[in-house]
Amino acid sequence: MAARYELFYWPGIQGRGEFVRLAFEEAGIDYRDVAREPGGMREMMGLLEAAKGRPASFAPPFLRHGRTIVGQTAGILLYLGSQLGLAPASERGRLWTHQIQLTIADLVVEAHDSHHPLGGDFYYEDQKQEAARRAALFRKSRIPLFLEWFERILADNGRGYLVGARLTYADLSLFQVVEGLRYAFPRAMRRAEKKSPRVAALRDRVAGRPRIAAYLDSPRRLPFNENGIFRHYPELDG
Amino acid sequence: MAARYELFYWPGIQGRGEFVRLAFEEAGIDYRDVAREPGGMREMMGLLEAAKGRPASFAPPFLRHGRTIVGQTAGILLYLGSQLGLAPASERGRLWTHQIQLTIADLVVEAHDSHHPLGGDFYYEDQKQEAARRAALFRKSRIPLFLEWFERILADNGRGYLVGARLTYADLSLFQVVEGLRYAFPRAMRRAEKKSPRVAALRDRVAGRPRIAAYLDSPRRLPFNENGIFRHYPELDG
Repeated sequence: MAARYELFYWPGIQGRGEFVRLAFEEAGIDYRDVAREPGGMREMMGLLEAAKGRPASFAPPFLRHGRTIVGQTAGILLYLGSQLGLAPASERGRLWTHQIQLTIADLVVEAHDSHHPLGGDFYYEDQKQEAARRAALFRKSRIPLFLEWFERILADNGRGYLVGARLTYADLSLFQVVEGLRYAFPRAMRRAEKKSPRVAALRDRVAGRPRIAAYLDSPRRLPFNENGIFRHYPELDG
Repeated sequence: MAARYELFYWPGIQGRGEFVRLAFEEAGIDYRDVAREPGGMREMMGLLEAAKGRPASFAPPFLRHGRTIVGQTAGILLYLGSQLGLAPASERGRLWTHQIQLTIADLVVEAHDSHHPLGGDFYYEDQKQEAARRAALFRKSRIPLFLEWFERILADNGRGYLVGARLTYADLSLFQVVEGLRYAFPRAMRRAEKKSPRVAALRDRVAGRPRIAAYLDSPRRLPFNENGIFRHYPELDG
């Protein structure tokens, strides 16, 4: 019997776990979302703790699949991509998909730091002024730069997906980033998306896939909120 | 004839390119450090520009090897690891090495943001106060947390390296991070390393490898400076 996929991530937020959830949902794969189950947080913390030998990961999310444990969002998707049919077959295609995912990860860090430029140990309320300065740059300079990069990739590929002729996990992740940025920065995104129509079209294409649409409509999809990576603080949206 | 490895990275700093250079140097492999050659910057910028179709990378570093182009430091090392004999043979071992590298990449972002919490579009002089707050947390909370994690991995493995019984690119990268943090935060690192003797011993073991020692002594090794990721601003060292 094949082992079940077990995702370990903080309950209550989409966060980085969502990039993994979207892959499972698109593939129609049964998976445990461990920390959302009763007792699951204890199980997750046990795998992170020092006393248990080799740590599963520096932080959630991480994945357990039989005897394999993989941490880091992009690492998890690298592992899952071929197993779930969400990555190209060739090594070159897999590396390129992974590279795009790593760039999405960079954007996710910057999205988080737009409201927490001094780091996660201070509350937002204790770094509001700093966040205002960083968010202004993020809106005006960084969001357009990243979207332009994805737009160029879509234009060059010319087949409606980031890589090749089929959906990959990178497409699902770009969908998630667009959703998150729209939630956090609705005004800035309306402006930025005018110059990246292919990115917006990809977002729609992913949202319309039957399994993704069903997932987004289900209670498994947590709402965005102000504990996650993408937070809507109107004062940061310019 | 096998294609030559060509690294593209900003000249004048170690930066993220250094993690790739160390892998080449340890392997004794001939490589081009393109942007440090006459005309090399133009070649690099051409590969990043929009007009040329698919972008090589969102940013340097990236690697060209024949027809393969790979960007993102961790992606480059994933590609090179098996080719240069600096990664385990098994898939599980390769994933774990890559996961550690991705965690090192997270630490590198935080090291950079300790002096640039508002992002790279402002000079340090325009965010000194914010940097003082972020650097304090980085020194007191984040550096010890990351070092403890590497220490646990070394203790659990028990063979002097992060993964298995042989040197991998993750060991080289951890060496580089320790060097960088010692340069940027000498006082904080003296304190932090007392609790992570295995990390310090790994740093020494890497520095003593003949090819690495020769490299560090050569003009190919650029000095740390205040344009790179690891910057020594005494006021940030507490």
